[in-house]
Amino acid sequence: MSQFTYNRLNKDDAAVLLVDHQAGLLSLVRDIEPDKFKNNVLALADLAKFFNLPTILTTSFEQGPNGPLVPELKALFPDAPYIARPGQINAWDNEDFVKAVKATGKKQLIIAGVVTEVCVAFPALSALAEDFEVFVVADASGTFNEMTRDAAWRRMEAAGAQLMTWFGVACELHRDWRNDVEGLAALCSNHIPDYRNLITSYNALTASK
Amino acid sequence: MSQFTYNRLNKDDAAVLLVDHQAGLLSLVRDIEPDKFKNNVLALADLAKFFNLPTILTTSFEQGPNGPLVPELKALFPDAPYIARPGQINAWDNEDFVKAVKATGKKQLIIAGVVTEVCVAFPALSALAEDFEVFVVADASGTFNEMTRDAAWRRMEAAGAQLMTWFGVACELHRDWRNDVEGLAALCSNHIPDYRNLITSYNALTASK
Amino acid sequence: MSQFTYNRLNKDDAAVLLVDHQAGLLSLVRDIEPDKFKNNVLALADLAKFFNLPTILTTSFEQGPNGPLVPELKALFPDAPYIARPGQINAWDNEDFVKAVKATGKKQLIIAGVVTEVCVAFPALSALAEDFEVFVVADASGTFNEMTRDAAWRRMEAAGAQLMTWFGVACELHRDWRNDVEGLAALCSNHIPDYRNLITSYNALTASK
Amino acid sequence: MSQFTYNRLNKDDAAVLLVDHQAGLLSLVRDIEPDKFKNNVLALADLAKFFNLPTILTTSFEQGPNGPLVPELKALFPDAPYIARPGQINAWDNEDFVKAVKATGKKQLIIAGVVTEVCVAFPALSALAEDFEVFVVADASGTFNEMTRDAAWRRMEAAGAQLMTWFGVACELHRDWRNDVEGLAALCSNHIPDYRNLITSYNALTASK
Amino acid sequence: MSQFTYNRLNKDDAAVLLVDHQAGLLSLVRDIEPDKFKNNVLALADLAKFFNLPTILTTSFEQGPNGPLVPELKALFPDAPYIARPGQINAWDNEDFVKAVKATGKKQLIIAGVVTEVCVAFPALSALAEDFEVFVVADASGTFNEMTRDAAWRRMEAAGAQLMTWFGVACELHRDWRNDVEGLAALCSNHIPDYRNLITSYNALTASK
Amino acid sequence: MSQFTYNRLNKDDAAVLLVDHQAGLLSLVRDIEPDKFKNNVLALADLAKFFNLPTILTTSFEQGPNGPLVPELKALFPDAPYIARPGQINAWDNEDFVKAVKATGKKQLIIAGVVTEVCVAFPALSALAEDFEVFVVADASGTFNEMTRDAAWRRMEAAGAQLMTWFGVACELHRDWRNDVEGLAALCSNHIPDYRNLITSYNALTASK
Amino acid sequence: MSQFTYNRLNKDDAAVLLVDHQAGLLSLVRDIEPDKFKNNVLALADLAKFFNLPTILTTSFEQGPNGPLVPELKALFPDAPYIARPGQINAWDNEDFVKAVKATGKKQLIIAGVVTEVCVAFPALSALAEDFEVFVVADASGTFNEMTRDAAWRRMEAAGAQLMTWFGVACELHRDWRNDVEGLAALCSNHIPDYRNLITSYNALTASK
Amino acid sequence: MSQFTYNRLNKDDAAVLLVDHQAGLLSLVRDIEPDKFKNNVLALADLAKFFNLPTILTTSFEQGPNGPLVPELKALFPDAPYIARPGQINAWDNEDFVKAVKATGKKQLIIAGVVTEVCVAFPALSALAEDFEVFVVADASGTFNEMTRDAAWRRMEAAGAQLMTWFGVACELHRDWRNDVEGLAALCSNHIPDYRNLITSYNALTASK
Repeated sequence: MSQFTYNRLNKDDAAVLLVDHQAGLLSLVRDIEPDKFKNNVLALADLAKFFNLPTILTTSFEQGPNGPLVPELKALFPDAPYIARPGQINAWDNEDFVKAVKATGKKQLIIAGVVTEVCVAFPALSALAEDFEVFVVADASGTFNEMTRDAAWRRMEAAGAQLMTWFGVACELHRDWRNDVEGLAALCSNHIPDYRNLITSYNALTASK
Repeated sequence: MSQFTYNRLNKDDAAVLLVDHQAGLLSLVRDIEPDKFKNNVLALADLAKFFNLPTILTTSFEQGPNGPLVPELKALFPDAPYIARPGQINAWDNEDFVKAVKATGKKQLIIAGVVTEVCVAFPALSALAEDFEVFVVADASGTFNEMTRDAAWRRMEAAGAQLMTWFGVACELHRDWRNDVEGLAALCSNHIPDYRNLITSYNALTASK
Repeated sequence: MSQFTYNRLNKDDAAVLLVDHQAGLLSLVRDIEPDKFKNNVLALADLAKFFNLPTILTTSFEQGPNGPLVPELKALFPDAPYIARPGQINAWDNEDFVKAVKATGKKQLIIAGVVTEVCVAFPALSALAEDFEVFVVADASGTFNEMTRDAAWRRMEAAGAQLMTWFGVACELHRDWRNDVEGLAALCSNHIPDYRNLITSYNALTASK
Repeated sequence: MSQFTYNRLNKDDAAVLLVDHQAGLLSLVRDIEPDKFKNNVLALADLAKFFNLPTILTTSFEQGPNGPLVPELKALFPDAPYIARPGQINAWDNEDFVKAVKATGKKQLIIAGVVTEVCVAFPALSALAEDFEVFVVADASGTFNEMTRDAAWRRMEAAGAQLMTWFGVACELHRDWRNDVEGLAALCSNHIPDYRNLITSYNALTASK
Repeated sequence: MSQFTYNRLNKDDAAVLLVDHQAGLLSLVRDIEPDKFKNNVLALADLAKFFNLPTILTTSFEQGPNGPLVPELKALFPDAPYIARPGQINAWDNEDFVKAVKATGKKQLIIAGVVTEVCVAFPALSALAEDFEVFVVADASGTFNEMTRDAAWRRMEAAGAQLMTWFGVACELHRDWRNDVEGLAALCSNHIPDYRNLITSYNALTASK
Repeated sequence: MSQFTYNRLNKDDAAVLLVDHQAGLLSLVRDIEPDKFKNNVLALADLAKFFNLPTILTTSFEQGPNGPLVPELKALFPDAPYIARPGQINAWDNEDFVKAVKATGKKQLIIAGVVTEVCVAFPALSALAEDFEVFVVADASGTFNEMTRDAAWRRMEAAGAQLMTWFGVACELHRDWRNDVEGLAALCSNHIPDYRNLITSYNALTASK
Repeated sequence: MSQFTYNRLNKDDAAVLLVDHQAGLLSLVRDIEPDKFKNNVLALADLAKFFNLPTILTTSFEQGPNGPLVPELKALFPDAPYIARPGQINAWDNEDFVKAVKATGKKQLIIAGVVTEVCVAFPALSALAEDFEVFVVADASGTFNEMTRDAAWRRMEAAGAQLMTWFGVACELHRDWRNDVEGLAALCSNHIPDYRNLITSYNALTASK
Repeated sequence: MSQFTYNRLNKDDAAVLLVDHQAGLLSLVRDIEPDKFKNNVLALADLAKFFNLPTILTTSFEQGPNGPLVPELKALFPDAPYIARPGQINAWDNEDFVKAVKATGKKQLIIAGVVTEVCVAFPALSALAEDFEVFVVADASGTFNEMTRDAAWRRMEAAGAQLMTWFGVACELHRDWRNDVEGLAALCSNHIPDYRNLITSYNALTASK
């Protein structure tokens, strides 16, 4: 087997693309439980903020049944490029979107969206074809059912995308707890209930010393 | 079949008992996904607040490995009776707890806790034996696995407890949307992501009229 | 054990209550796959039509996020009593609804709706308390998840409701294929793909004789 | 709780009713895997034979899409009463069937069939209403999906039916291995692969002594 | 990793092959629920029609137990090449079939059928060996169980097939909503109940303006 | 609803019956994962020891394919009554077994065994018919699959048995941590990995104070 | 992507290796239900016989706890090479086994066994390293749980093995029904209950013409 | 397909890396049941000991909420290199860890840890990039849920890691039972309950000869 190169996420090389997390489309997501999915999407958004990654928002037909972008995302990234696509299903077919991506100057693209096999897979494949490194945030992306998700993952994986989940993205970007212990701990505490509980118990015990 | 009487939840007759939602014990809960469980417990707490129900907090051995009460619950009910039990496993074996329950003057007890077959079932059975009406909030109670939960549900049901989930409790207490449309909508929006999305889309469309 | 009386569904004694099958609320249903659920609801509606059962439609807040009644139901029962409830969560708390039910003169109520533990369970329990025989059509009723459904089923069952599914309802009402072979076969063929396939193969072979 | 009487299966008091195990209807069964279901039905038939229980076969519309009785059952019980019902969905609505049941002179009815909520539940409820003891062989009965099965089980259980599976039926009838060690062992070996393996290993080791 | 080329579905380059969706064979499909599977197959057929893709129908032994082609497919494509194979299990072993495929002049083949590991996989592998681009419509193909499906997917994927589902195929072919908003919306509304509900709610609200 | 009496487990009133936990029969257990099941059976045995409950061991045909009693159980209870039944399938049909049970003088029977619907259910039903209080330890009992277990649970529950799991039994017997903190903690630590981890973390933090 | 070559199973090029289907080891298999697994193993054996493929049997330590070869396999292949390995875990480490394989003169090896990640994967990897074409019969191979199976499949797939199931193997070998309609139909009828039912219904209808 | 080389585990070439099996972090593991996971981790440790493989322990922030290393691991390897990382998330970013790995002089690294997609995947990818052969022990590694695990497996597999489970590792290292029959049997007996039962039955029968 030929030598493998570890294309590690690097906070100086990465941008985040949030594709079509719209209120209507979210009702289509059934491969992941709604409380968990909401948490994962917000966790990804929070980490994008935490690591100061350039972030691009885009929507598809937001005036129609697909509905508006989830308000929390808009609120978190008030100044981010926001491309309301007039019709292109593949965000990469929209010139403004691609321009915004290229304007970040980053080669690593962290992508999540709804639904996985379309809104995530299409731009992921397009970006791979232009030699970007693509990291799909699988648990912040959702679709109709597990069969559809599984097929979508395989198609992207075969094309060279790396499948990750938000916590792995956060850890690979952070590299070392000492870069900001409180920051990463807050991210974990806010989005991983089990981790929050560990911290609660730990604080109680150390405070009582 | 004999005549059935519908013992309906009534906000003037009901009290809420939150039993042993402690940071350590929560790590034992594996019959329900953590993001969903956290949401359900906070939803129950929020509805207790919303309906102004007398609420009692209790913990078991909170100085030891079981850990402290989840801080959100303490923060929500700063003035509620709080019984840190020195050793009784069944909260109903603790005189202060029973006194606090009886001091509410309510006959309908809404119970949730961790773990279901012990911290919920034991006081539920004790209360039923003293002729309280018991409503178990099944989705704000958790335990080791589904088999354990199923056995616990059956034992409580056979004793006459009514199995409910937080949303049903809220709706049965509220009776009519017109009693407080915004209030119930906020509760739903904060704790049911699909409902929040419906409201988001609705608001966007009606705002644009 | 005391003698059991089989309260069998009887097409002359039965009415159908369709509660809150609204476009918005349907996005909350996650204990049953959408294609299957849509089919089940329409199958129940078709059988109500087929057996000429008095049918009552009701909705909750249909101008708001809950959305309008599913159009197919409205189209199937253009002349049915239609009670758009102004706020009552339990349809049985609405006088017009109860009047409409009682006006049918039937003692057997076949109920389905969204969500199970509220829109179905509340009127089911109220009707049982007034000595109606209640038959819950479990697979034409939906809710957030299986845990919630399971708790709702137990509560209704403990109160004396009979849990059924649409096909059982159809068969218990029909009694004998000879009452209308084509009619029941059409119902099965339209709503049970496996049954449709049996008929297709059967017809092909007998036609070729 | 009042005194419980254990109505134990007794091979002198019991008859077996096999309802609508027809080649077409079997394609509807999806709550149990086909290899396992085929095995369970044949195991039940074999035990009926082994214990010499009067057995009654019945079918619904076997000339149409429902298809013929599974040939193995016909072959096993060439002289059993065989009621091809001309239209009655509930076998108990067919006079010949009820006569055949009563002609056995047994008060314990062991019932299995396809589909559970109709072909099993309807005659089970009818028989309970006439004070027969009813034992449903749950794993030799099948239906569309687990939700439907679950509702059917609850309805029969609420009416007083006892839910069993074929192995429990065999063991409760047999009472003591010494009544026929080879006979029961053969039944287990033919229908429980894990048991067959235990016997194979046992025989190999004891033969090699 | 070498440069990836995105072989995107193109409505001018693609043909659809529907292999052995026969009434008898469909009873073998147990890796996907029947209501959903029926919907997916018809959705694929509808999109083939919508995009005017050359479509080829083929069956295996349709006079025998495998049964006739599902009538809806025949009705939708009355003029399509229809190859009733006299015995070849792999459709690609049938000269007429291959001729029909090549007569379309397309290099992208969209394949679905029953059962996945045979009727889909064999012609897919044969077509790949002749340098066609193969897109398997995973959710319009069915087989005995998930283990079998999983193995079949891996074999096809390893050979270079792209795994998709019908909605992804439709979106990749359509490219831009503006090419025909009503057309794509109708396809979604007819085959995705959640999407239909979004449209229903949207229409109600915009109509009421 | 009539007054409910809470028949609480009492360490002075209870005996433990371990039925047919034999090396061969354990290979039949497939409704619970082997590592978990082994742990549960040993946990039940350990708690019987811890609370000094009279314990009775029995086996069925242990010289044959069913195999010997699991050695750990024999080792834990060297002086317990041990009834190797010569053929009776229902342990309660064996006079020595019933004598041993009655010799304990206890009215509360805690039963577990393999397989659930036979070796547990039969003596449970027999004991209930003689007015013992029966507590089934559901997670230390195993059988062929979940369907079989579910039917067995319902039959025992309908007869008045209380379904519990080992941890609930331990807690209901112990009543108050202060009766023996170390003892109960050791039981938990040895048989609940998550609890062991809580203790490990707790000890590490308090030791470091 | 480079040109793909379809290495199709060919009955003149293929041999079957059945590895360690021993009575004791079978109790370890929990990733597949026992009735189904038994059926799959026998189906594979029957097809080996049907296509007259050279077949090799091997066992590991059959005198010890692993137990003897399943008797049905021995009975089906009385003259096949039978290598009882004295200790080698990887059958390919046994010279006699490799000699027997090479003596068949075939380049396509169809392998199944227990447990998948050891008894199947090790010789599969060894054979691939010597340039055999390897076809793993996934559903006639079993192991401890699905996680283990999944890891084993991936390891073999990455090495170039083709994952198949017994029915796919049969169909790929047979090529054309006309080569022996009765033979293949009998194989299907004996090992696919749904197919048997199709044939039963078909025969009944055509016989009645 | 090019020639495949079987990089077989070799006890003289392999080292074991146990990464972050800490008491706190273990509460995050929910893709595998706790009893089973505890068993798998200890099984891996036992086999490392049994084969005398150089073993390296490392932890992340063990003074904080992550908690101390599981005590059993420390006890088993009192003299192993133990690297308590001050902050590096990827163990391979810690110089002491890499030095310890390289000091073993082994090229085959057997890695397990918590959580899979971070503590296992990151050092696995780093090691692959430095041309080590990496064997991930999938069932002694755990993470938040199955979706996360699945994505992590795919990322490591795409990089060239071999996915194994502890039993496969043990068997591939051992090669031949005759190298130490008792040793391997003890490992199996202690960590595979089904295997222990086989041995128990075997010993009972051979002892009784």
